[in-house]
Amino acid sequence: MTISLEHARTIIEATRAKGRELGLKPLSVVVLDAGGHVLAFEREDGAAPGRFAIAQGKAYGSVMLGMAGSAQMARAEQQAYFMAAVNGVYGGQVVPVPGGVLVRGEDGGVIGAVGVTGDTSDNDAEAAMAGIAAAGLKGEA
Amino acid sequence: MTISLEHARTIIEATRAKGRELGLKPLSVVVLDAGGHVLAFEREDGAAPGRFAIAQGKAYGSVMLGMAGSAQMARAEQQAYFMAAVNGVYGGQVVPVPGGVLVRGEDGGVIGAVGVTGDTSDNDAEAAMAGIAAAGLKGEA
Amino acid sequence: MTISLEHARTIIEATRAKGRELGLKPLSVVVLDAGGHVLAFEREDGAAPGRFAIAQGKAYGSVMLGMAGSAQMARAEQQAYFMAAVNGVYGGQVVPVPGGVLVRGEDGGVIGAVGVTGDTSDNDAEAAMAGIAAAGLKGEA
Amino acid sequence: MTISLEHARTIIEATRAKGRELGLKPLSVVVLDAGGHVLAFEREDGAAPGRFAIAQGKAYGSVMLGMAGSAQMARAEQQAYFMAAVNGVYGGQVVPVPGGVLVRGEDGGVIGAVGVTGDTSDNDAEAAMAGIAAAGLKGEA
Repeated sequence: MTISLEHARTIIEATRAKGRELGLKPLSVVVLDAGGHVLAFEREDGAAPGRFAIAQGKAYGSVMLGMAGSAQMARAEQQAYFMAAVNGVYGGQVVPVPGGVLVRGEDGGVIGAVGVTGDTSDNDAEAAMAGIAAAGLKGEA
Repeated sequence: MTISLEHARTIIEATRAKGRELGLKPLSVVVLDAGGHVLAFEREDGAAPGRFAIAQGKAYGSVMLGMAGSAQMARAEQQAYFMAAVNGVYGGQVVPVPGGVLVRGEDGGVIGAVGVTGDTSDNDAEAAMAGIAAAGLKGEA
Repeated sequence: MTISLEHARTIIEATRAKGRELGLKPLSVVVLDAGGHVLAFEREDGAAPGRFAIAQGKAYGSVMLGMAGSAQMARAEQQAYFMAAVNGVYGGQVVPVPGGVLVRGEDGGVIGAVGVTGDTSDNDAEAAMAGIAAAGLKGEA
Repeated sequence: MTISLEHARTIIEATRAKGRELGLKPLSVVVLDAGGHVLAFEREDGAAPGRFAIAQGKAYGSVMLGMAGSAQMARAEQQAYFMAAVNGVYGGQVVPVPGGVLVRGEDGGVIGAVGVTGDTSDNDAEAAMAGIAAAGLKGEA
């Protein structure tokens, strides 16, 4: 099973809707495929211009390591030099905090990741989980 | 005048519709703001995984230089070392071919750029122009 | 509303005047637009040669994240690995300390940023705030 | 003899005045010191956002090689791979075309360089030469 553009569009729409429901700041949402490559992205008006890279960094590290943002953060807090080294080998593209959420298909395999940024990391992750659920997929934050 | 996410969504939707109308291969479409930062992106199913970077490179060079893709290509054909050098100063992010299209606002100023990739460069540019027109904006290919 | 070269020249002149009034060391002052691109810069005689990159790094991170230098520093002190990761995704161009000051237009939106370096970070920020006020704009340090 | 900020400000002001006199497009002007480090820069309203890097690239190659833009261009046309290799060792920061102008002091030694971009390369160079002359210094285009 692979993640389609329709999945990605649904995820982005539902993540943004959740953000409005929770009264969050303007969100930026990226969906990556199982290879870590960008499928779709939207940045809401009023978000800072550099938000694409933060969203992508949250999702990219999740796919590449097979570890969601909260697990990456735990590792960074225990062993900062390890996550720094990981970032080195991945070209500095990893942002190890919540808001990077794995997307799993029916058989439980990772089929992509979502990266959300704009509000607190925990709120970003909550919005992403709602978006993934709306697409009928399973998120792991 | 600035380019909004609603503009970007309309541009992407209408660019993709034009691609289907013309029978083009799967397209990837990015919209950048006036500072060259990503506002929205979609990659159609069946497109190669690396298409984001190509689409962004077409649009990024357009914004940063204030020159659309066809003008960049003309310069690259006349003076290859100049465009190679430009790419060096922009971190290798410039793809100087058609499909990079400037978006101009009411007063004629550049408010962003669209990058399309997937079919021939000329078809990519034609689809982008249709997308920009659908948003009530003026494209320069 | 966008930041003009005249705004930038006024900001630089008034920031430097404030530096002399306070008896600060030689200052370097950059003004970036809303996309993080350099509009104007001056480095006072006697400043170290590498000051452009420090000034730019303070201002660039401010624009890209929509967070002024003091907020970036607070985040770096709480979560060093997060700001290190942010720096990775922005190509190592972020210097997260005071002296990076957001410039807001009449409606409160971010229209650019000023980066000042040369004295203590707090003095750098104070001079920048004076410069921005002299241009009739609102700073956030 | 070293180039001062006052020299740099005079050069920029007079280069811009020459541009207006000749009816050129909006110019961006950088002045580098003898070590290739930025002393001052201004980008006129209406210029594309990425002009700092082009201006700097013209001036940087001039200082680092001790060769003005027209000499670099001649070399690039004779031996493109050589200038490409030079660019590699200088981190991709060299733009080998006219508009990169050496600044010589009273004893003929190189004390800095000016980089101008915005119009044709030859017009850029002409404006730079006028700016350097206005500061009582000798330019080599």
